[in-house]
Amino acid sequence: MAEGDKDDRSNTVFIGKKPTMDYVMAVAIQFSRADEVVIKARGRAISAAVDVAEIVRSRINKDVKVKNIVISTEKLEGEGGRVSNVSSIEIFLVK
Amino acid sequence: MAEGDKDDRSNTVFIGKKPTMDYVMAVAIQFSRADEVVIKARGRAISAAVDVAEIVRSRINKDVKVKNIVISTEKLEGEGGRVSNVSSIEIFLVK
Repeated sequence: MAEGDKDDRSNTVFIGKKPTMDYVMAVAIQFSRADEVVIKARGRAISAAVDVAEIVRSRINKDVKVKNIVISTEKLEGEGGRVSNVSSIEIFLVK
Repeated sequence: MAEGDKDDRSNTVFIGKKPTMDYVMAVAIQFSRADEVVIKARGRAISAAVDVAEIVRSRINKDVKVKNIVISTEKLEGEGGRVSNVSSIEIFLVK
């Protein structure tokens, strides 16, 4: 199920702390160029990633479907070298 | 992809505001009785649902796998009858 480390994909939208609709628009723009877009998030942003996918699918483009969802655990190195586990999600959308 | 409204399944663990490990234990207990457990969450609890699934899978029982993940939008009626859309997730785990 490991799908991580492909972070150089240009069709990936990373969810951060901006307003949800910013990411909805980013996904819509990617779909103007590609048939598949990956929404990726870590930690608390995972909830927002699901919001973005659901808004794109239900309001922006009803042809968009969820192809696959992969969850995994990433090890993040913090200050002082302490490693912490953070859950992540990748939502693969296709049109 | 609609899998909602099956909330009477006894093998479903709903993620709320308790500590993550409480839900990890709830899932572990369900797995002592069933081969499939569904972790369900809405809104901000979605991130915790992914944490619970990842902790069960990586630390509690390495035989547990993610069978499917379904995201959807639920309409919740608030005070005064105002309806709001809330994202939800169902993570289907099997051993």
